[in-house]
Amino acid sequence: MPQLLFHKATRVELRARAADTLVVLPVGATEQHGPHLAVGTDFLTVEYLARESAKIVAAEIPIVVAPTLPYGSSPHHLPFGATLSLGTETYYRVLCDLLESLVIDGFSQIFILNGHGGNNELIQLAARDVTLKHPARIAAASYWTVAREALERVNADPGASIPGHAGIFETSQMLAIHPDLVAQERPARDADRFSFSVTSAVRVKAHGFWESFDGYTDSPARATAEQGRKYLDAVVGAVAAAFRESYVKCG
Amino acid sequence: MPQLLFHKATRVELRARAADTLVVLPVGATEQHGPHLAVGTDFLTVEYLARESAKIVAAEIPIVVAPTLPYGSSPHHLPFGATLSLGTETYYRVLCDLLESLVIDGFSQIFILNGHGGNNELIQLAARDVTLKHPARIAAASYWTVAREALERVNADPGASIPGHAGIFETSQMLAIHPDLVAQERPARDADRFSFSVTSAVRVKAHGFWESFDGYTDSPARATAEQGRKYLDAVVGAVAAAFRESYVKCG
Amino acid sequence: MPQLLFHKATRVELRARAADTLVVLPVGATEQHGPHLAVGTDFLTVEYLARESAKIVAAEIPIVVAPTLPYGSSPHHLPFGATLSLGTETYYRVLCDLLESLVIDGFSQIFILNGHGGNNELIQLAARDVTLKHPARIAAASYWTVAREALERVNADPGASIPGHAGIFETSQMLAIHPDLVAQERPARDADRFSFSVTSAVRVKAHGFWESFDGYTDSPARATAEQGRKYLDAVVGAVAAAFRESYVKCG
Amino acid sequence: MPQLLFHKATRVELRARAADTLVVLPVGATEQHGPHLAVGTDFLTVEYLARESAKIVAAEIPIVVAPTLPYGSSPHHLPFGATLSLGTETYYRVLCDLLESLVIDGFSQIFILNGHGGNNELIQLAARDVTLKHPARIAAASYWTVAREALERVNADPGASIPGHAGIFETSQMLAIHPDLVAQERPARDADRFSFSVTSAVRVKAHGFWESFDGYTDSPARATAEQGRKYLDAVVGAVAAAFRESYVKCG
Amino acid sequence: MPQLLFHKATRVELRARAADTLVVLPVGATEQHGPHLAVGTDFLTVEYLARESAKIVAAEIPIVVAPTLPYGSSPHHLPFGATLSLGTETYYRVLCDLLESLVIDGFSQIFILNGHGGNNELIQLAARDVTLKHPARIAAASYWTVAREALERVNADPGASIPGHAGIFETSQMLAIHPDLVAQERPARDADRFSFSVTSAVRVKAHGFWESFDGYTDSPARATAEQGRKYLDAVVGAVAAAFRESYVKCG
Amino acid sequence: MPQLLFHKATRVELRARAADTLVVLPVGATEQHGPHLAVGTDFLTVEYLARESAKIVAAEIPIVVAPTLPYGSSPHHLPFGATLSLGTETYYRVLCDLLESLVIDGFSQIFILNGHGGNNELIQLAARDVTLKHPARIAAASYWTVAREALERVNADPGASIPGHAGIFETSQMLAIHPDLVAQERPARDADRFSFSVTSAVRVKAHGFWESFDGYTDSPARATAEQGRKYLDAVVGAVAAAFRESYVKCG
Repeated sequence: MPQLLFHKATRVELRARAADTLVVLPVGATEQHGPHLAVGTDFLTVEYLARESAKIVAAEIPIVVAPTLPYGSSPHHLPFGATLSLGTETYYRVLCDLLESLVIDGFSQIFILNGHGGNNELIQLAARDVTLKHPARIAAASYWTVAREALERVNADPGASIPGHAGIFETSQMLAIHPDLVAQERPARDADRFSFSVTSAVRVKAHGFWESFDGYTDSPARATAEQGRKYLDAVVGAVAAAFRESYVKCG
Repeated sequence: MPQLLFHKATRVELRARAADTLVVLPVGATEQHGPHLAVGTDFLTVEYLARESAKIVAAEIPIVVAPTLPYGSSPHHLPFGATLSLGTETYYRVLCDLLESLVIDGFSQIFILNGHGGNNELIQLAARDVTLKHPARIAAASYWTVAREALERVNADPGASIPGHAGIFETSQMLAIHPDLVAQERPARDADRFSFSVTSAVRVKAHGFWESFDGYTDSPARATAEQGRKYLDAVVGAVAAAFRESYVKCG
Repeated sequence: MPQLLFHKATRVELRARAADTLVVLPVGATEQHGPHLAVGTDFLTVEYLARESAKIVAAEIPIVVAPTLPYGSSPHHLPFGATLSLGTETYYRVLCDLLESLVIDGFSQIFILNGHGGNNELIQLAARDVTLKHPARIAAASYWTVAREALERVNADPGASIPGHAGIFETSQMLAIHPDLVAQERPARDADRFSFSVTSAVRVKAHGFWESFDGYTDSPARATAEQGRKYLDAVVGAVAAAFRESYVKCG
Repeated sequence: MPQLLFHKATRVELRARAADTLVVLPVGATEQHGPHLAVGTDFLTVEYLARESAKIVAAEIPIVVAPTLPYGSSPHHLPFGATLSLGTETYYRVLCDLLESLVIDGFSQIFILNGHGGNNELIQLAARDVTLKHPARIAAASYWTVAREALERVNADPGASIPGHAGIFETSQMLAIHPDLVAQERPARDADRFSFSVTSAVRVKAHGFWESFDGYTDSPARATAEQGRKYLDAVVGAVAAAFRESYVKCG
Repeated sequence: MPQLLFHKATRVELRARAADTLVVLPVGATEQHGPHLAVGTDFLTVEYLARESAKIVAAEIPIVVAPTLPYGSSPHHLPFGATLSLGTETYYRVLCDLLESLVIDGFSQIFILNGHGGNNELIQLAARDVTLKHPARIAAASYWTVAREALERVNADPGASIPGHAGIFETSQMLAIHPDLVAQERPARDADRFSFSVTSAVRVKAHGFWESFDGYTDSPARATAEQGRKYLDAVVGAVAAAFRESYVKCG
Repeated sequence: MPQLLFHKATRVELRARAADTLVVLPVGATEQHGPHLAVGTDFLTVEYLARESAKIVAAEIPIVVAPTLPYGSSPHHLPFGATLSLGTETYYRVLCDLLESLVIDGFSQIFILNGHGGNNELIQLAARDVTLKHPARIAAASYWTVAREALERVNADPGASIPGHAGIFETSQMLAIHPDLVAQERPARDADRFSFSVTSAVRVKAHGFWESFDGYTDSPARATAEQGRKYLDAVVGAVAAAFRESYVKCG
């Protein structure tokens, strides 16, 4: 089987495969994740999911996974410290530059798999704008969106906000893949469910919003590794399916 | 009752009202809308909806509607001609500049009501970034998202994609408010429902995508003014409710 | 007669007419206009003038009027509140994007008609830069410049600064077209004539300059609807003539 | 008398004088000037004029002349070769950076003296935008505008376009100050007067416009050193007067 | 001992340590490395070196290593394919955004350790510009520069260009840390030493320069794991010393 | 012999010579140079060196010297006053615009000769990026780097930092070419040698660094005109050689 990871292949291999291979570009963030999760949570999780999903479909479709971009658009987390954020315009240009590099390299099928909510709008815009200029097909999606239905099926805790931020969902996943990166003491809260939607259908951005709930949603103390494993399996299945579906055979 | 429209008020009135008034900023587009709809469809519709919704709540909350921005982010429609589009980075800056102007003017509650799909990501980003820098509350939403449930209730044609583009939904609304701006001959198509989602859960951006279905979705010939009136009433009700809910009383 | 307004036409009509039609792009501003005029004065006025002038020549030359851009370059009015301004670099890009869209749409003759002094340099630059890159003819002018001689002929009040800002000239015009948007009480001042030129031939930009005369020039109380109507007729005649002269027949 | 030239003074002198001294910033261009004039014409001329005018007023007001910026906004001359041009956005930023540097240095009175038509809009914008942000007074003017009346008085050739480009006016001036930089053979043309205004009152930018008259206006062969000396003296007098008038005494 | 890796720590730990801790930011590239090396060579190598060097000094000074940025400034490698490059202006902004994030997070001592030649100028500029604006100390250096003397001491092959590109030096290091990412067949060349300096003291940038030697310097076939281990140890020692020296104790 | 200075030639001459002529672009700065040197030191010196070196080789290779850019990247000197600086992004664009202008003009061999340390990274980047896009050869070097060996040979004062800033080296050169621009009283310091390298091999940028030694290095009082003349001759020889070596004959 050919090399799954872009950065481990040589130019010879990559040039030979470019024309008919799907490139997955995992993008995450380095940002505060409550008092209990490592700040690398988003990029560690999406890197895990991208590679596991790619492994599953690698026998069926030609696929390669690019290096994970560990920095994303996190201005809303800067007030908490422990965060490295790219500005909105910077991050848009980073994504366009990477996508255009891949097009120059001869790739025409790309899937940006996103692991951080704050990146969501910008991956859509970059995918749109680069495909308008170049003959390429580019999918761009956050992993929890790809797997929404599967995640609702396996979720056992009605108080879990999916994805939320640093809450039951993310904490459970980290307990399953990186238990050493979850603090012993995890905060607990009564509130059953946290919602980002301030009005019935509209999410209002308000100054100081993230600080108002200390930068994490719902109740991390209720996270478990078992639930995390279920989430991860559900996502890997759904993302693998999305890779397959988005791929178009040449010739 | 105070002036509903920002541009009809003097600086004296606006300064007096800034501290506790919700400003609605309607944003649209000027772009091809199939062979049958006027290219101003998006901004005409959102202007109508913003003003009607504001009228309804004007007795309850202080509200003012800014001039409609008639140009938006429409690069995907440029290949069809008859389109005026702002680049991604330009449009982001336009929105930030307008929002920051309102903050300088003393307003702290703003609602961007959007009438064009291509603007959706950029209004979210501008709202986020300006509220992080300034003590403001900014909602940003496309009108069909605000009214999703109400629209599903009143929609009688299962083949209507909501919002779609220049299809049954938009054409019906235009028949109700500007029948003179709908061509006599409207195209018909068999396909019951058009979907932007190429895979099950992921929307892939593909070069030439919009050209592949001639720039309009589903079957405009099936649009009716009666259906349009129902759509509009549903939206006006939902948007008015969103204005009310998003508003926070001072003191 | 074909549709005069760009936004009311379909793509079918606009594509058919692009090659030999003059597009007028009216640009204005939303900004404080003294204590007595509506903040939409500039875009309302230029929209009126662009459409009236176009109507006059529509029988002679193919012409279409694009949607008025209601926001312009007004940083000098932000300290007064009630103003929405685009930054200098933003506004330049907006104009270039709109002009390039029109070129992509197949138009090659464009006339930017400007209704706000602060936009004047930027419309010149955008027109220059886009015509250097593309095979187009683009005129860009403020309406009072186009009509300077005619305005001097019809002006009866030697204390009127033309255009000034929110003074006798603009107030008179608004009394003629939108009397409801002029406050009952209009400020009066002794000074016969206000001049922007601080030295004999050079206009010095000074910090706090606009605040030093409360954001309006000369004496609005002396404005009359009759004088306004004369101004408007003079401008419409001159602008219509400029449309005609700037137009070059194809083939 | 203190040092007239900024670049010849030390930081000690400049810091001591900053608070009450007028800084003149001469800006020019390096661009084709017909077949007969050196490409440095614009910056050589404006440097001469700025320094001569400053010398005249140096006994009356504190004044210092900054290094001449030899590159300007000349995209319209690039098709002729022999031209070095800064892009529109680049040049705007250059001017803002230089003006803001002077403000940081403690200067608050600045006069941009311009020697190239293509720079005219951008010096106005930079002057406006920097004075809005900082407590400064900035004049920005092309030398022929400052001296318009005086130039009309001394001009003996009705076919001379003032300023035109590389025509009788500029060629005469160069014959007076740098005769070695004027080619022996100078082109002659019948046309009495060249006008940039294509319509009666509006200047239309047209693709290929400059190439249509080979990059120079009117008839350089009719230039004389005597006429050039008269032009120069007229300008120096008018610019010196403008320096004086624009200057505001402190305390 | 506290967590060595930034991304494995929580916000609680990082905020507590920010004031007196040195943050190392490793930056690399994903780009063609000849026919024989994995395209991730630069970021894999610098990540290894940054972490090993930090481990050595961690007992003496408070230190933490941020996630490696796997994408850099590689436009000169795009013609070879298999390369992902950020544009010059993009990469400058990325670096400034990351450095400013760290300053906001409370860190004031930062060391950018660079593993790709093309990044060298931009890390210097970002370090300069951010320290001018903020009260911080920022070192920025390519690892081979830090270790120049030590590398010359341990280098046994006079034909090795240090660093060169994908030649004896880099290939040896990869053989020592990632032998699986070096192709079996490595190209050989007679030329003893490759030099980037075209003239005696000046490096000329020439179009097609990198293509002229097929994108790798000197003779990769002569690389050995033993030599690589010596290079790595020399670098780790020198970089560890540089971390120590650059660090300033607080209080 | 053809005209040595670009700005003194006409477009006719320059177009005829473009294809096979080396253009030298001297770039400097206007910035504080201690209490004793004129702020124009950098651009005056590099202009002198560029022209003298070009004269020497003009008999052997076709060469022309463009106007000196008197403003550079000097943000670190702004706190001292008496400085005009272009921002990092501005200066990068200025250089790219000038280089691209020369390419459009038909030149393909360019040598940026730099006279100010703060410009060094940006001239490299601009040279790299423009040659990647266009078929050109562009050298970019600071004059003291070109002449490093020659300068070490002629330097008699072991306490002289070369280049340093406003120290023995620069002061000596100015005493030789512009003695009137050196203050009578020059500061003296005991420290034999000033080093920019804070650690053994790494230069750390630290906030307030330049202020910590009052903006000049080593001991200007020890400068002499004789030493300056030796420095200048050494540089002229080395730069002339570099012009010769970098030049590639056509055909």
